Amino acid sequence: MLTGTSILGARRGSQTGATFHGINPATGEELQPAYISASAEEIDAAVKLAEEAFASYSKLSNQKRAQFLRSIAEGLESIRDQVIERANLETALPAARLQGEMARTANQMRLFADVVEEGSWVNACIDTADAERKPLPKPDLRSMLQPLGPVVVFGASNFPLAFSVAGGDTASALAAGNPVVVKAHPAHPGTSELVGNVIRDCVKANGLHEGVFSLIFDSGIEAGTRLVKHPLIKAVGFTGSLKGGRALMDLAASRPDPIPVYAEMGSTNPVFILPGAIEQYDKIAAGLTGSFTAGAGQMCTKPGLVFLPPKDESANLVADLRQRVADLPGFTMLTPGIAAQYRRGVTQRSGADGARLVSGFAPDSGGAGTTAALLEADAEQILNQPELSEEIFGPTTLLVRYSSREQMLEAARGLEGHLTAAVLGTEEDLATHQDLIAILERKVGRLIFNGYPTGVEVCHAMIHGGPYPATSDGRSTSVGSQAIFRFARPVSYQNMPQLALPEALKDGNPLRLLRKVNGKMTQDPIWG
Amino acid sequence: MLTGTSILGARRGSQTGATFHGINPATGEELQPAYISASAEEIDAAVKLAEEAFASYSKLSNQKRAQFLRSIAEGLESIRDQVIERANLETALPAARLQGEMARTANQMRLFADVVEEGSWVNACIDTADAERKPLPKPDLRSMLQPLGPVVVFGASNFPLAFSVAGGDTASALAAGNPVVVKAHPAHPGTSELVGNVIRDCVKANGLHEGVFSLIFDSGIEAGTRLVKHPLIKAVGFTGSLKGGRALMDLAASRPDPIPVYAEMGSTNPVFILPGAIEQYDKIAAGLTGSFTAGAGQMCTKPGLVFLPPKDESANLVADLRQRVADLPGFTMLTPGIAAQYRRGVTQRSGADGARLVSGFAPDSGGAGTTAALLEADAEQILNQPELSEEIFGPTTLLVRYSSREQMLEAARGLEGHLTAAVLGTEEDLATHQDLIAILERKVGRLIFNGYPTGVEVCHAMIHGGPYPATSDGRSTSVGSQAIFRFARPVSYQNMPQLALPEALKDGNPLRLLRKVNGKMTQDPIWG
Repeated sequence: MLTGTSILGARRGSQTGATFHGINPATGEELQPAYISASAEEIDAAVKLAEEAFASYSKLSNQKRAQFLRSIAEGLESIRDQVIERANLETALPAARLQGEMARTANQMRLFADVVEEGSWVNACIDTADAERKPLPKPDLRSMLQPLGPVVVFGASNFPLAFSVAGGDTASALAAGNPVVVKAHPAHPGTSELVGNVIRDCVKANGLHEGVFSLIFDSGIEAGTRLVKHPLIKAVGFTGSLKGGRALMDLAASRPDPIPVYAEMGSTNPVFILPGAIEQYDKIAAGLTGSFTAGAGQMCTKPGLVFLPPKDESANLVADLRQRVADLPGFTMLTPGIAAQYRRGVTQRSGADGARLVSGFAPDSGGAGTTAALLEADAEQILNQPELSEEIFGPTTLLVRYSSREQMLEAARGLEGHLTAAVLGTEEDLATHQDLIAILERKVGRLIFNGYPTGVEVCHAMIHGGPYPATSDGRSTSVGSQAIFRFARPVSYQNMPQLALPEALKDGNPLRLLRKVNGKMTQDPIWG
Repeated sequence: MLTGTSILGARRGSQTGATFHGINPATGEELQPAYISASAEEIDAAVKLAEEAFASYSKLSNQKRAQFLRSIAEGLESIRDQVIERANLETALPAARLQGEMARTANQMRLFADVVEEGSWVNACIDTADAERKPLPKPDLRSMLQPLGPVVVFGASNFPLAFSVAGGDTASALAAGNPVVVKAHPAHPGTSELVGNVIRDCVKANGLHEGVFSLIFDSGIEAGTRLVKHPLIKAVGFTGSLKGGRALMDLAASRPDPIPVYAEMGSTNPVFILPGAIEQYDKIAAGLTGSFTAGAGQMCTKPGLVFLPPKDESANLVADLRQRVADLPGFTMLTPGIAAQYRRGVTQRSGADGARLVSGFAPDSGGAGTTAALLEADAEQILNQPELSEEIFGPTTLLVRYSSREQMLEAARGLEGHLTAAVLGTEEDLATHQDLIAILERKVGRLIFNGYPTGVEVCHAMIHGGPYPATSDGRSTSVGSQAIFRFARPVSYQNMPQLALPEALKDGNPLRLLRKVNGKMTQDPIWG
């Protein structure tokens, strides 16, 4: 059933060329079939098809676009077991986790379908004319969001479904009315093809232009580079490493016409344990261990830096954490390369960088197998060695005991941008730490109280973003309904007759949108 | 009354250092006083003050922030005559034009005051918790826009008020809750100081932290470069040339932490005259001539490229235009340098680039004085020489007669990003040219029917933006209330107790905002 070829609209890519294989990280076994890297011509063809598709897809009715997104959700669910089986083989992520991710991916498509069907997301604004105004008559002006054009989406290694071929970037870009070309992550090509086939079938079944969706395979960075530099590409979605994301940012910024890059590049997600929380040390130890080892620590929201009250106060918590980490079974990571990088990172941090290994970690485990590692450092060290707060992708976290409230605040002030920060404590702690909250508000996209950062709710109020280096663009979110705003731009129409106005802006308000008319939000039509 | 020194919060910059003068472009005379370029230390001090001010200014109540903006509007109006007199001396823009610009600048402050006071612009979203949800409980999530941090604004040469010290960038950045450091345009330092003093006085009178506003003088690019590279600066607003804007974009993109640049870099604003319009050729000739020579053609919305029906059909129109341009008096441009560049541009276009001079233009006029120029080229030429559609800043426009509908569409497809496009014609023309509209929608921020692009209405539905190279970020507008969104980013709060939530997100909705609660827009409080 799997062909190993790229999807170029309605046709398939060449069956010859350089090949690569998915690898079962648990066994090191090569998975069949071989995948063929797309050629420069194929990439160009996919982008040109996307550009061709834009004319009709961008004007598709809200209802039909919503129907298309829902059909993808249904299509995914119809081959759920097959997808999960393949994803498990390619990533070693447990079936239970993949089931949750599959549900999330389908629900995400449905959330965007709802947003598109309701339609008010386009932010329709109407200022009506006033011919009598002095000194000059006031023109009629109407604005709304319009899609950008073909979007490239890069699949992520750590979420083979929710941040890959049919993930949040694809869903939001399609929802906004943009054709999408996905560059599959080479670590899970089979999963990508299965999901890509579903979207391709839905394009056809919904009678859409074939160019609405293509899927490109490549083992290296060539195809991605070519896509980001392609003159017809208008935006980029990416989830992955800081190094990879920054490379795409620099590439896009150096184009003759720079384009937006939405790169979610992970972070260390600092956790602040305030004095009042420490009584419940066993609950915290359990919650924290669960969070930093979830998905073998391969989550962009993994809490990798934990600030604790001074030594005596947090002794029980540290002892409990040490025991829990010592008791953990081993993990199989996504790829042997990621595992090797994890081991190097922990070895470096607990060696040359001067942090102490508190519990866990067997540096000799080979292949994709590895073990969790609990590290500790002094607050002084964190202040002087900012590299200690950089992300190590994998099941490790760094405990830092602050010696005073002022030192904790200083450490917070020194933080770079992160996706999240969490504060554990009583309401009383919170009342006496408003200064900490004010500092963290500027550093993150999401601020959590008495909870852990993993588990990103897909809803309207979710912001999965944060200042650089957490993301390339701290004004955006890659999860939740607001992700749609990334792939649209406002256009204003001046004195345009009804016949040439988009439906969203017509006097009669045929779409029944909530619109801003002369400064007031209303669903009423405009009376002539 | 003018001191020639930078404004660094409550204090003034040094009275010694390298100096420059405003120049009266009409006479070439140096205007007093001398202006002193700010030193590196002064620039650093201004930015550090802005960062210090952020803590309190970003948390200022909506009412107080609105009051501050309104006080600036009043302060400007209280020295209106003085400002206009100085601006006229420094720019040679006529008093009537400057009066209009002053009114617009004050009204813009008041528009943002209204937006801030009403408060719903923060896009408050609340998804309430559901402890019973399976398989996992749903957390409480609440998101809203928060300001970015200190913003640098570059004053523009061509709008000494509306796009300068107290212009749209400053107004929207302050409205969103960001302290602002303005880099004054060196061509109108006196005007800048007068306006800067007003803002500084309002900062004090409103009891705000002095760092909310600073104004930096410098004759070259050093201060601007230093500001854009400063680690505490979080965004940039700019109006000016493509070359200058692109340099700032590249500078910001190459920072260790790239920051957003909102550069409005002008454009050629193509006009399409459809066959049905040509009957009213005298009306069109008058409107077009008025628009392309308004402000001596020194407007980013100047129509610099006009597509006309084939030769015979548009003969009357061209004859009328030729006569009107021949009858125009001379213009004094903003600076001798801008005038020289204009003359070089017209000479190059009508010489080596192969366009024909139809009317006007005296290449020998020296200093800042110059004359309008009407040029003509074949559609073939435009298709083969895209440089013909690049902006020449000044009172010139290029007529292009299309030989067929298909050729006109081809020319439209070949256009780069522009701030505006205008279509002149009958409603019947519009109905038969939906393809043209669809092409132009992707190229511009504003699409105008039977009107001219100059005269940018300040309102909710105005989009003064457009794809690169018209601006650095086609997802934004620099005019109208939506400009506020450029200087804010969303932050989400998870399971945060009421006491630590911003007012905008509290259950009781004390600010009476329109909020999205569980997917529905409402002003209701949340019932516990």
